[in-house]
Amino acid sequence: MKCTILTVGTEILFGQILNTNAAYLSQELQKLGVDVMYHMSCGDNPSRLKEMLAHAYHDCDAVITTGGLGPTQDDLTKEMICDYFGEKLVEFPEQLEILKGWFERYGSPMTTNNLKQARFPEHGTVLPNPNGTAPGFCIEKDGKLIYSLPGPPREMKPMFDDYVAPDLKARSGSALYYKTVKTLGIGESSLETELLHLIEGQSDPTLATYAADHECYLRVASKRGSKEEAEQAVEEMMTEIRKLIGPYIYSEEGEELADVVLSRMMKDGISLSCCESCTGGLFAKEITDRAGISAIFDRGIVAYSERAKMQELGVSAETLEKYGAVSEETAREMAEGLRRVSGSDMCISVTGYAGPATKENPNEPVGLYYIGLCYRGKCEVFRYMNSRPDRAHIRSRAVREMFTLMYKALFREA
Amino acid sequence: MKCTILTVGTEILFGQILNTNAAYLSQELQKLGVDVMYHMSCGDNPSRLKEMLAHAYHDCDAVITTGGLGPTQDDLTKEMICDYFGEKLVEFPEQLEILKGWFERYGSPMTTNNLKQARFPEHGTVLPNPNGTAPGFCIEKDGKLIYSLPGPPREMKPMFDDYVAPDLKARSGSALYYKTVKTLGIGESSLETELLHLIEGQSDPTLATYAADHECYLRVASKRGSKEEAEQAVEEMMTEIRKLIGPYIYSEEGEELADVVLSRMMKDGISLSCCESCTGGLFAKEITDRAGISAIFDRGIVAYSERAKMQELGVSAETLEKYGAVSEETAREMAEGLRRVSGSDMCISVTGYAGPATKENPNEPVGLYYIGLCYRGKCEVFRYMNSRPDRAHIRSRAVREMFTLMYKALFREA
Repeated sequence: MKCTILTVGTEILFGQILNTNAAYLSQELQKLGVDVMYHMSCGDNPSRLKEMLAHAYHDCDAVITTGGLGPTQDDLTKEMICDYFGEKLVEFPEQLEILKGWFERYGSPMTTNNLKQARFPEHGTVLPNPNGTAPGFCIEKDGKLIYSLPGPPREMKPMFDDYVAPDLKARSGSALYYKTVKTLGIGESSLETELLHLIEGQSDPTLATYAADHECYLRVASKRGSKEEAEQAVEEMMTEIRKLIGPYIYSEEGEELADVVLSRMMKDGISLSCCESCTGGLFAKEITDRAGISAIFDRGIVAYSERAKMQELGVSAETLEKYGAVSEETAREMAEGLRRVSGSDMCISVTGYAGPATKENPNEPVGLYYIGLCYRGKCEVFRYMNSRPDRAHIRSRAVREMFTLMYKALFREA
Repeated sequence: MKCTILTVGTEILFGQILNTNAAYLSQELQKLGVDVMYHMSCGDNPSRLKEMLAHAYHDCDAVITTGGLGPTQDDLTKEMICDYFGEKLVEFPEQLEILKGWFERYGSPMTTNNLKQARFPEHGTVLPNPNGTAPGFCIEKDGKLIYSLPGPPREMKPMFDDYVAPDLKARSGSALYYKTVKTLGIGESSLETELLHLIEGQSDPTLATYAADHECYLRVASKRGSKEEAEQAVEEMMTEIRKLIGPYIYSEEGEELADVVLSRMMKDGISLSCCESCTGGLFAKEITDRAGISAIFDRGIVAYSERAKMQELGVSAETLEKYGAVSEETAREMAEGLRRVSGSDMCISVTGYAGPATKENPNEPVGLYYIGLCYRGKCEVFRYMNSRPDRAHIRSRAVREMFTLMYKALFREA
C-alpha cells in the first residue's frame, strides 16, 4: 500500500511548530509495511485543501490527514474531504451524545459550533477520540481510502495506534517483521561494505543502513504472508549479519546506547557518578532524563572553573598548572577525586575545549577532550579529537563517547 | 509573494528526521513578508518530483526546494527542475574549478560523479555553497521563480540567508519591519484580551499572539513602501502595546529569556553557580550551551542522592529527615551551602518530584518543586506545582522558572 500524509494547519506553514505528526506517522506506517510517498501541508483554506487532496492520490491508495477537525469556522478538513468524495456531512446521534457527555464531565458549556464535531461523512466510520472532543473518521470510496485524524499529537497518536494501524494491518494481507540493529564503532560506509553482498543480493528481507547522530544502524525487514514467516526470514538474515558485524552490534531492538548501558547498571546495581567540564551538565541531564535512575545515580559535578575542579574533585593546582585543565592528568584526577568523595562503583569524567575559538584563546585546540573512567579498581583516560569544531557537536559527541566507554567496560571486559 | 517549500529526501518520508528545513524556511520567509502556502516532501523519484513541481505553483509565484543536489545517481532535483522549465543542464567551468579546489583542499580524490555538481540549468544563477560541495541555483522563467538549495541544514541555512533572502527582499518592492515581543507571567488568552482592541482594529501593523514552550509572544509587523515607514508604524503600535502590557515584556527583539538573563550577568560580571536535584543537570546544560559562559559560570552540582546533598552542599541530615528532600528547607540549605563553597554572586537551587508516580512512591506529589535563590545577601525559596505530571515537562518548566526568578532578581529588584 502507498500513502500520502497531509497535515493541515497554519502553525506548520508559519514554522512555529515542527511537523512531528508527519514524522510519527511515517515511522509507524513504515513499520506496517506501508510506503509513504508524499508529505503535504497546507493551511485551513478550502481551495488549497482541495488542491492537495486532488494530488495526494497520485501514485497512492491511501491518505492520512491530521488537523482541521475542531469546532471553529477555520476547521475545514471534514468539509473538504466530503466535497472531494461527494459525501454529505450528517449528524451522527450517538456521537452527539458522547460529545454532550464530554462537556458535562468537564463542566463547560457546549457552544453551538461544537455540534460540528458530531457531524461526519454519511458513509464514513467514526474513529473515537478518548483524549479530546474531535473524533476522527475514515472513508473508502472508488478505491481511495482516507483516514482523518485530529492535529494535537496526544490525540492523534493513540487514535492512529488504536484504530488506523490495526485496520491497515488487516487490509495489507501480509505481515511485516523487522529488527533495528544498532552498532558501535563502525561508520556507515564500512557497514555497507561489510554487508554489501547481503544488501545487493536480497529483495526480502530488505536490508538498509542509516546514519543517525553519532552512530549508524541497520534495518532488516521482511514482508510475508504471516508474521511467523517474516520473523523466520529476518532471523535467518540476522544469523548472516551477526557473522559479519557481530562485534559492532550493541542492540538488535533499536534501543538507545544510553538505555542499554543504564539498564544493565540498574539490573546489576552498579552506582554511578559523573563530573563534567566541557559538556557542562549534558551528560547528567541525559542520565536523569530517565525515570527511576535515582536508584543508581548518585551525583554529577559540573566543575566549570579551575577552582571548582580543585574544590569539588581535589584536582591539584600543580596538575592544572603543569598540564592544563584539558589534559589526561586532569581528567584522571577528576574521576579519581569523584570516586573518593562519592564512593560510586563507576565514576566518569570529561574535560575538553568545546569552543568556539576566539581572539582570547586562538591556540586552544577546539574539539580536543579527555574522558576518564574509574571502574573496578582501574582508572583509564582516553583522548579524543572531534572532527568538527562545532560546540554543540563536540558536546553531544563527547557524551556519546562517555556512554561508549561505559558500554565497553560493562559488556566487553566482563 | 506566495511560495511553496518542497523538501526532497527519503529520510523525511521515513520519519527518520524531522523536517527542520521546512520550519526554518517558513519562519524566515514569514519575516520577509513572503506567504508560505504549502509544504511538500517527496523522495528522489523522477515521476513524483515532477508531480510535486507541477502543483507547487498552484496559487504560488515561487518555489524553494531543498535536497537532492548531491553527486549520486539518486540526486535528481536539478534534472527534474530542468525538465520542468525546459532547460538544458550544462557545465559551468568556473564551478568546476571551485569544485576541484574543494577536493584538493580536503585531500580527497574527486570521483567522476562529482562533475554533476558543476552542472546547472543553462539560464540559471549559481548560489555559492561555502559549506559543502553542492552549490544551489535559481531560475526565473514564465513568471515562475525557483530557488534550489542543498539538504543539509548547515549548508542550506547560510545559502538562504546570504543569497535567497536578499534577493526576495529586493524583489518584493515593499519593506517588512517587525518586532517579536516576548513576555513573562501572562498567558496567551490574557495577552489577547489585553490587546484585543488593537488586534481587532488593525490591518497594518498586524499583531498576532503565539504560544510557545512555557511562554507566549507577540509579533508586530508592518509592510510599507519603505523600511522607515514600516518601522515607524511598528514603533507607534509598540507605544500602545507598552502601555497595556509593559510590565510583562522582557524582550522586544525576540531573545530567549536565558540569553537576556545571562547577557546581563556577563555584562555586570555577576558570577553564578547552581545545584539541581529533579532537573538533574538540565539547568547547567542550558547555561553551558552558551559559548563564553565560563567567564561567569563557576560550577553546577547535580545532587541527586540525599548523601550528595549532604556531602556536596552541607544540607543537614535533620532537615532531610524532618522536611524531606523536596521541601523549602532543603532548597534553602542547598542554595546556601552552594553559596558557602562556591562564593558565587548568585546561587540557585532546585529540588522536586519529576515523577512519574510509581507503586513505590504513590504519595509523592509529582510536579511539586522548590527553587532557592541566593543573591545580594538574601536567600529566598519559591514553591511551584506543575500543571502536568509529565517528567520532561516538569524538568523544562522548572528550568524556565529558575531563569524567571533570576530575571526578576536582576531587572526588577535593582
